[in-house]
Amino acid sequence: MKKILILLTLLSFIAETNAQNKDYPYKPIPFTEVKLTDEFWSHRLEVNRTATIPLAFKKSEETGRVKNFIQAANHEGKFCTQYPFDDTDIYKTIEGASYSLSLHPDKKLEMYLDSMITIVGNAQEPDGYLYTARTMNSTHAWMGKARWEKEHELSHELYNSGHLFEAAVAHFQATRKRSLLNIAIRNADLLDQVFGEGKLSVAPGHEIVEMGLAKLYRATGNVKYLNLARFFIDARGKRKYAKTSKESDNVWETGEYWQDHKPVIEQTEATGHAVRAVYLYSGMADVAALTDNQAYVNAINKIWENAVGKKTYLTGGIGTAGDGERFGKNYDLPNESAYCETCAAIGSVYWNLRMFSFHGDAKYFDVLERTLYNGLIAGIGLDGLSFYYTNPLEMNMRDGTISGENKRSPWFGCSCCPTNISRLIPSVPGYIYAQKGNSLYLNLFISSSTQFQLDAKNSVSISQQSNYPWDGNIKINVEPLKNASFKVYVRIPGWAKNEPFPSDLYTYSDGKKPEISLKINGQKVDYQLENGYAVLNREWKKKDLIELNLPMEIRKVKANENVKDDIGKIALERGPLVYCAEFSDNSGLTGNLLLPENVNLNAEFRPDLLNGVMTLKGSAKAVIISEDKQSVSTRTQDFLAIPYFARSNRGVGEMKVWFPTKIINIDLRSE
Amino acid sequence: MKKILILLTLLSFIAETNAQNKDYPYKPIPFTEVKLTDEFWSHRLEVNRTATIPLAFKKSEETGRVKNFIQAANHEGKFCTQYPFDDTDIYKTIEGASYSLSLHPDKKLEMYLDSMITIVGNAQEPDGYLYTARTMNSTHAWMGKARWEKEHELSHELYNSGHLFEAAVAHFQATRKRSLLNIAIRNADLLDQVFGEGKLSVAPGHEIVEMGLAKLYRATGNVKYLNLARFFIDARGKRKYAKTSKESDNVWETGEYWQDHKPVIEQTEATGHAVRAVYLYSGMADVAALTDNQAYVNAINKIWENAVGKKTYLTGGIGTAGDGERFGKNYDLPNESAYCETCAAIGSVYWNLRMFSFHGDAKYFDVLERTLYNGLIAGIGLDGLSFYYTNPLEMNMRDGTISGENKRSPWFGCSCCPTNISRLIPSVPGYIYAQKGNSLYLNLFISSSTQFQLDAKNSVSISQQSNYPWDGNIKINVEPLKNASFKVYVRIPGWAKNEPFPSDLYTYSDGKKPEISLKINGQKVDYQLENGYAVLNREWKKKDLIELNLPMEIRKVKANENVKDDIGKIALERGPLVYCAEFSDNSGLTGNLLLPENVNLNAEFRPDLLNGVMTLKGSAKAVIISEDKQSVSTRTQDFLAIPYFARSNRGVGEMKVWFPTKIINIDLRSE
Repeated sequence: MKKILILLTLLSFIAETNAQNKDYPYKPIPFTEVKLTDEFWSHRLEVNRTATIPLAFKKSEETGRVKNFIQAANHEGKFCTQYPFDDTDIYKTIEGASYSLSLHPDKKLEMYLDSMITIVGNAQEPDGYLYTARTMNSTHAWMGKARWEKEHELSHELYNSGHLFEAAVAHFQATRKRSLLNIAIRNADLLDQVFGEGKLSVAPGHEIVEMGLAKLYRATGNVKYLNLARFFIDARGKRKYAKTSKESDNVWETGEYWQDHKPVIEQTEATGHAVRAVYLYSGMADVAALTDNQAYVNAINKIWENAVGKKTYLTGGIGTAGDGERFGKNYDLPNESAYCETCAAIGSVYWNLRMFSFHGDAKYFDVLERTLYNGLIAGIGLDGLSFYYTNPLEMNMRDGTISGENKRSPWFGCSCCPTNISRLIPSVPGYIYAQKGNSLYLNLFISSSTQFQLDAKNSVSISQQSNYPWDGNIKINVEPLKNASFKVYVRIPGWAKNEPFPSDLYTYSDGKKPEISLKINGQKVDYQLENGYAVLNREWKKKDLIELNLPMEIRKVKANENVKDDIGKIALERGPLVYCAEFSDNSGLTGNLLLPENVNLNAEFRPDLLNGVMTLKGSAKAVIISEDKQSVSTRTQDFLAIPYFARSNRGVGEMKVWFPTKIINIDLRSE
Repeated sequence: MKKILILLTLLSFIAETNAQNKDYPYKPIPFTEVKLTDEFWSHRLEVNRTATIPLAFKKSEETGRVKNFIQAANHEGKFCTQYPFDDTDIYKTIEGASYSLSLHPDKKLEMYLDSMITIVGNAQEPDGYLYTARTMNSTHAWMGKARWEKEHELSHELYNSGHLFEAAVAHFQATRKRSLLNIAIRNADLLDQVFGEGKLSVAPGHEIVEMGLAKLYRATGNVKYLNLARFFIDARGKRKYAKTSKESDNVWETGEYWQDHKPVIEQTEATGHAVRAVYLYSGMADVAALTDNQAYVNAINKIWENAVGKKTYLTGGIGTAGDGERFGKNYDLPNESAYCETCAAIGSVYWNLRMFSFHGDAKYFDVLERTLYNGLIAGIGLDGLSFYYTNPLEMNMRDGTISGENKRSPWFGCSCCPTNISRLIPSVPGYIYAQKGNSLYLNLFISSSTQFQLDAKNSVSISQQSNYPWDGNIKINVEPLKNASFKVYVRIPGWAKNEPFPSDLYTYSDGKKPEISLKINGQKVDYQLENGYAVLNREWKKKDLIELNLPMEIRKVKANENVKDDIGKIALERGPLVYCAEFSDNSGLTGNLLLPENVNLNAEFRPDLLNGVMTLKGSAKAVIISEDKQSVSTRTQDFLAIPYFARSNRGVGEMKVWFPTKIINIDLRSE
């Protein structure tokens, strides 16, 4: 027995050593190494620190989420919130607060985290199990009688673990404190004892434990966490469901809802619950990178092509259907009923960062940037205190009220989105730069600085300044410690190259190819484009200055003709931003607007509006109903569009992203 | 053993005798006793005889329905049509042809029936089983391996039997030939051997065998058929389904689709597949009448209140949802996507005739007449050769084509509707008159004559002449053989009394109470209204003439405000007819029409149009799209409405029953 243990330890050491040699080829510079100076994002991070995170903790206390942990510690009481995964709101907020602390030290917040982590730790059972509903001996329809019994459905036990691991690693990285990490390790060790070959097997009902375990492996170097992540991924597609995907569109009947309809390496389409899906694909990417699993990479490559080719909204939002918060069929992208959950946009950012890290292709950052600047931050109000769970591309008056989720809320019964966004916002600095060997990647245009290590003796400081996304002038300072030859890869966004989207799902209607100017030290340079990057290969010296000028024309977008809901319509973009018209700026309505294809629009920065936004101004046609409701007419009226992310900060009313260019048909509605 | 048999025979004789004493109190005068002279209906019956019935037989031959019987007789071949219930198309057409023969002797048709019945008889197995797919040893996913194995789902074995019984009784009544009746009896005797207490039990997957058995009982006097009908009805609500109706809206999961979610006497709502539902309720009525089952009556009374109070279209159509061809939720009556299967309208006529026969209330004929003159005959083209399966109340241009089933077809893969309508049309004479003791009922205003037997020595000839439905002047001749006192009940239609519908689902918007004039021998008479009938109680003598004048104002209908799809809209009626606007008469479109609430309309008979119809003429507002598709305006244009039943006889285009009176909102559509 002892010999076997030694052998196992040795094998695990070998595996660990092997594994440690494998990772993503393109390594993002972590958030801890990036200093933010950006007007647009610094403000958001500050609002997140001063408003969103305090609100999330306050709401976690008020709603009983903290009480759940206290009751669990005492093995008493009744689970006092709605969902067994409510535990994760605290983990996610700790994660967000940790990123925030790294960027902005805050003694009070750090102490609050310490006390919150103590409360969490007290709720952990001696063997490492941490799931407040069960530990307080409460019941919940979703959780089953025994541990993990309903994990494949809705118990969310492994979901809670996954978020715990993510938070623990972030807290450890930001503070170097091991308090939450130790709780996570105890929990992960329990999972390792319970699950695995010859032990219990389950396809986690809501993925994230895979990503979490991969992070825990990176933080601890313990390969068993990585192996367990892979085990959970490979557990999918083994359960027998009532119907096959060919037989039924009901994603619950087929297992597609939980991406459990096929083994993951046979999956080719983005399907089922969108947040679950992108968390799975992110976890597959992590495990694939760390174990060199080409079958996973092939699968997520295909799934990505499907998602980006046929199932993504112009805003980067994903998830067509409210029933099941899920991906729809190919090209099924209705605007008014679009689900586009904020959490799904967040998951898409995670996934696309990982896809870049594999392939070093700018197209993944085209999707990431589109999502980040549009569908994602649209999920949080400018005040940092109000949230959208869903982000449709159109709101209309129906039966006397505005359709859908028509105003922002400070919290939700299922409050995944506010706490998820509280951890996403301060993680943004971690997406700006990346490195592969001596090649440096600049992926996002966010004013900031960082350092790249070239070799033991030389490093490079890079900083960038711009007024992005309002302005396309980007100044990038490259400062090597010593002169050195290396490549700087500057992402040239697809939208600047007349390719708004990495597939033919969206194209610009006017076909103009505006000039992109790139200078080094004042001299215009020719550059090679490689995987969407301008490759600047030279001997760099102190005070070298790259000046990139991205064209900021207003562009009209058309959707692929298979997208039934966008036929004959255009949308407006400028730079990375998708625009919308809101009722407040357009005589009270937007459902009545017609934008002729040749409409002439001008950009005007309005410092007074919505914390300062670039607006698009011009004239539109509007169909007007007479006072007596007996006739309609068309008039030309002032038109103003605002960035989509700034929508719904001024009351409840109509909103529109896709505008008809012609009136082919009319539905008169008498309600 | 012998003693028991004698006892059983005796008991069954007693039961039979008892049962024979029970029946509907209000007895319709059968079609065999009514002579039709009506312009409107005679034409339809003639088209049915000369066009529809020959077409149905021709199609039955061409499509392999007849071949199925021939193959079954030879126990060979492969079932060569689509559905195992395709056998019934032949039964239904024989039934229709039989009614037709009764009214219009036709030697050739009679001989054709004889040969067809021989073909049917040859396919019957020695023990009476008759179901061509199985007898030819073919397979079908719906039919199961053993007889009746999938009867509770989709095998339709008892459905085929039910239609066989209906056809056999009609053929026997019309021709006094027993050929098909004997086939039916052999089949019914087999059912009696197989099913019953202590034998096999099943809730028939598609009801009709209950009605069929009741008819067979009436025709043969053999009470075992009646008992078996009751057994099948009581078999419902015993199967365990995946979900309860409270847990799921999926009518298959809950058994509601087949009205199998509860025992029938606990059912209170019209639910599930609409044809199945109304056939069940009709069967329950028959069995209730013949066995004095008050629990059944209570149930169908409640279900009728629900159906007529919350789930019936203005046209009498039933069935909201295409998925499952089923009743929707209360007040869920969308116009464009309305299913309103022709067969469901036919079933509703059967059911309402039976409800009247119980209660003697004119409200059932209000529904029956509304259904017959609108939603039902809309299912057949004026040529008698083209059919609609569904009968929506609106057709709109969507994505460049007209929504839904947008043109009539000569036949369908599932061709239940054409053959069903071929048997309904010639059965209409059987709905005009009824009798209870010495009280005579005039239910429909269809020019015709019949005889009532008052007692052994006296009878009354009644005839009526009118130009109904175009004209409200009805002349009724009452001719007793000898002077006698008795009551004549003349139905005063709800629509004439300012009550278009027997519930508050539809009301007239103007509130006018037009005068109904009733004269006897030229003298205006006061009359009592009793259950919706003008009761004329006097000593009748030869040549007595009743003159009823029903007001033929054009009326504007409003729907109950709970019907979301009709809010702010009006529909148009005149007499028993619901009107629609068609593209052909309204500058090519109807989706753009607005009818102000005070719109002034005039009735004009147009002999040239659609075989001669009363039209409604006036001016409407229309929203017009400019040539360049860049603007809209409103104009006043000529408006013409035609009877809904005559829709879609002039090509494919928009059609509308409910018109907005105000424009509250507009959807611009660019496709």
